[in-house]
Amino acid sequence: MSEAQTLPSTGGRRARGGAEARRAARGSGMAKQQGFIRRNVPLYEPFTTDQLELIEANAETVLQEIGIDFRDDAEALSMWKAAGADVKGDRVRFPKGLVRALLKTAPREFVQYARNPERSVTVGGNSTIFAPVYGPPFIRNLDEGRRYATIEDFRNFVKLAYMAPSLHHSGGTVCEPVDIPVAKRHLDMVYSHIRYSDKPFMGSVTAPERAEDSVTMAKMVFGDEFVDQNCVMINLINANSPLVFDGTMVGALKVYARANQATVVSPFILSGAMSAVTVVGTLTQILAEASVGMAFAQLCRPGAPVVFGTFASSISMQSGAPTFGTPEPAHVLFGAAQLARRLGVPFRSGGSLCASKVTDAQAAHETANTLWPALLGGVNFMLHAAGWLEGGLVSSYEKFIIDADQLTMFQRFSEGVDFSENGQGLSAIREVGPGSHFLGCAHTQANFETAFWRSTIADNNSFEQWRDDGGKDATQRANETWKRMLREYEAPALDPALDEALQAFMAKRKEGLPDSVA
Amino acid sequence: MSEAQTLPSTGGRRARGGAEARRAARGSGMAKQQGFIRRNVPLYEPFTTDQLELIEANAETVLQEIGIDFRDDAEALSMWKAAGADVKGDRVRFPKGLVRALLKTAPREFVQYARNPERSVTVGGNSTIFAPVYGPPFIRNLDEGRRYATIEDFRNFVKLAYMAPSLHHSGGTVCEPVDIPVAKRHLDMVYSHIRYSDKPFMGSVTAPERAEDSVTMAKMVFGDEFVDQNCVMINLINANSPLVFDGTMVGALKVYARANQATVVSPFILSGAMSAVTVVGTLTQILAEASVGMAFAQLCRPGAPVVFGTFASSISMQSGAPTFGTPEPAHVLFGAAQLARRLGVPFRSGGSLCASKVTDAQAAHETANTLWPALLGGVNFMLHAAGWLEGGLVSSYEKFIIDADQLTMFQRFSEGVDFSENGQGLSAIREVGPGSHFLGCAHTQANFETAFWRSTIADNNSFEQWRDDGGKDATQRANETWKRMLREYEAPALDPALDEALQAFMAKRKEGLPDSVA
Repeated sequence: MSEAQTLPSTGGRRARGGAEARRAARGSGMAKQQGFIRRNVPLYEPFTTDQLELIEANAETVLQEIGIDFRDDAEALSMWKAAGADVKGDRVRFPKGLVRALLKTAPREFVQYARNPERSVTVGGNSTIFAPVYGPPFIRNLDEGRRYATIEDFRNFVKLAYMAPSLHHSGGTVCEPVDIPVAKRHLDMVYSHIRYSDKPFMGSVTAPERAEDSVTMAKMVFGDEFVDQNCVMINLINANSPLVFDGTMVGALKVYARANQATVVSPFILSGAMSAVTVVGTLTQILAEASVGMAFAQLCRPGAPVVFGTFASSISMQSGAPTFGTPEPAHVLFGAAQLARRLGVPFRSGGSLCASKVTDAQAAHETANTLWPALLGGVNFMLHAAGWLEGGLVSSYEKFIIDADQLTMFQRFSEGVDFSENGQGLSAIREVGPGSHFLGCAHTQANFETAFWRSTIADNNSFEQWRDDGGKDATQRANETWKRMLREYEAPALDPALDEALQAFMAKRKEGLPDSVA
Repeated sequence: MSEAQTLPSTGGRRARGGAEARRAARGSGMAKQQGFIRRNVPLYEPFTTDQLELIEANAETVLQEIGIDFRDDAEALSMWKAAGADVKGDRVRFPKGLVRALLKTAPREFVQYARNPERSVTVGGNSTIFAPVYGPPFIRNLDEGRRYATIEDFRNFVKLAYMAPSLHHSGGTVCEPVDIPVAKRHLDMVYSHIRYSDKPFMGSVTAPERAEDSVTMAKMVFGDEFVDQNCVMINLINANSPLVFDGTMVGALKVYARANQATVVSPFILSGAMSAVTVVGTLTQILAEASVGMAFAQLCRPGAPVVFGTFASSISMQSGAPTFGTPEPAHVLFGAAQLARRLGVPFRSGGSLCASKVTDAQAAHETANTLWPALLGGVNFMLHAAGWLEGGLVSSYEKFIIDADQLTMFQRFSEGVDFSENGQGLSAIREVGPGSHFLGCAHTQANFETAFWRSTIADNNSFEQWRDDGGKDATQRANETWKRMLREYEAPALDPALDEALQAFMAKRKEGLPDSVA
């Protein structure tokens, strides 16, 4: 990460250096930030090589025989034709091995730079990066219930993710600011990530020109040349499953790939609707779609950073409603992670997914049933890691806090086990012996501060103490936490000249854009 | 399991045969029962062989140099002396290799017979058995809040476990019936398991004579000879950590081992209090304690079925309160499971552990953070799998239902992935093609009934539908579920003569016992 040293300075505070910055951070009521996860526990890889090879062979069959539609983008079809694919109308069929061959230029891992170099993240290998929920048009909190989201909510979630030590990333559309015109809101979103956080962030994908605006703003922060040579944005490109890439997504993908910015190519699948009702059928389709999207990025610019994305859950076959936290998507996640590693590209999946309408036991179980597979399966980039509620329609303030707390648990778990002499603890067993206790022994005294992970949300007190404290549940405690965090929030330093330039760009750009909010 | 054919008949209905019995079960509103889990997914084994060997060497050091106390049991000390151990006072020190050598007679797996042969379970190998919460003096439900448990509650939890398809076992002290005198309640507990369920159950361990009573009652059900040759009860023997076995537990262990009944030897550990504050130190102590307890069972009767038990969590180093769902105990669980497999004995751990006072997001996250490691770590016998609340002080009606629902999720996950031609689903992808959907395709039609696991507690409806249905959270829905189950409960058939004999035995036995309830 020596390139970090070439990163242009965007904040006055950073020049003070690490220790002073940390003191300053503590002074502002901010919890000590954790770096992204470098997993120090093994992966759980339930699929055998034979099984994975079968899925790969089936995916090749799908690509050769059925193919994938690239809609509303003549340039993309020409590019595929030139690359050797069989193009008829919108349909592109891929000779065996073509897609894999194109993927040879995709990096195994890459750095996404943040404007604060301490917050830069490595995507791929044994890394795991937690990013907030993406996309909900609604918010929920205990005080107001459920309502449409605003730019104020957007800023709030950016601030909470900035302060939460387990969020390594500021994310993208942490909620849809529906009070700002559709054609303009991407500017406010990108600006908010830059202004209110110093963690890495995502660009807009809702139209190619909005992707261009995102790149322009990133270049104002990081410099033209730096952006051309390094990843400073990661961007979510959904396949329109089954087997379609539409013009909007392909357009955004082209902008980002050509600008050398990362694209997460993610089939968005609810099995039973957008894919077959089986795990293996779903994996076959995911592999076909993700591979083609990532290969197309390589056609746009060989070496452009890409991520194999998977958003896969199921529907209720009774009602058609999306379901989360069920066992079949867990299998899909483990399988897709193994397939991505065999392709040699980073993997995105997981998150705090749930169908529950409130932050109850259902929400937590469904969330845990995605987080555990995501962590053990080796997800590199975890979008939706905190705050997701109600099938992704709602960004929940309280759930954000509860999820973020759980993420610190997973981060600690990922550190693995200490086998040093101190970790072995024989001295403690010798000191204490049979029938006594370890509460005050020397080994405990020497280790108690860091011995155990501590939840900031769980109440472990006695029933009587808990009752006397008001008998609150986790959601009520989380409500107090996010309000306290927002009260204590202090923005990271940003060069005033840069801030002014960004605002001027936005103002000028908005002049030409319509005011429709639908 | 050919021995099942020799099992004495205890119910009139069973003679009717499987299909008719299943129809009868459906008629009684009972969900289709699932057999115990035969895990068809790989284990997660994060510890390396070198690491496990280091722990084993350290445990030998503890056994040789420090030793373990056997208190208030002169016979046990004599037996250890005769076996070659170094006995000084209550302290027993074990020459290197002695404990492992004794464990050679312990079975790798064994069948625990139920009075309904369809409910018998195999403990060990790739099996996982879910049993209810064990031990709480309190209950909680939405209607009454928290109060002391009664024999009525006890019967209710036995009935719920009987009806829940994911509970493969009736458990033991599903709650403490504190309305019955201490010296008598074991009789009512064992009777309730026999009368209100036909699943396998646990005996009393609170005094040697109560263990004898449990064996006597089991013999009335299964016959003297059958019990002497087969396991019909599994019994929880806690080590008094650190490094002590007390007279009560050793007394009960002797009764059960000599009767050829299974003992689960479980160090009960909250790290920081009963063990060192490190994962490896805790594992070292667990291995030492569990091995010695199981070896002692082999001294009592070579070949007696034993289970390597582990109940390990941590305490808050700030307040001393027990904590659950934290990462350190997850590491301990994975490590202990690997150590047990290396010893060649079945493993017990896991459960719906939590510190929360109510069935909220905290309770669910903490529970999930034990259930996932337990399932992937390969727990064979999972006590506390449903209903645990508030650090084990409370048996919760609603949490029992929510946990039991999650257990069906884990059971489905454990079945693994279908790689048949139908599972591969290529025909579906061919039929549907790009840009359409899979909702009505032939492959979906052929598979939709069994394609996806269905929660009985989750609400996946739209926000509007959910709101119109009353806006209930998971706890409120679970409250309705357990009440409906108890309304619909029908007892399994029991030979009236046997029932009469059991009641007569209890009445006579109670005559000589004191009425104290404390």
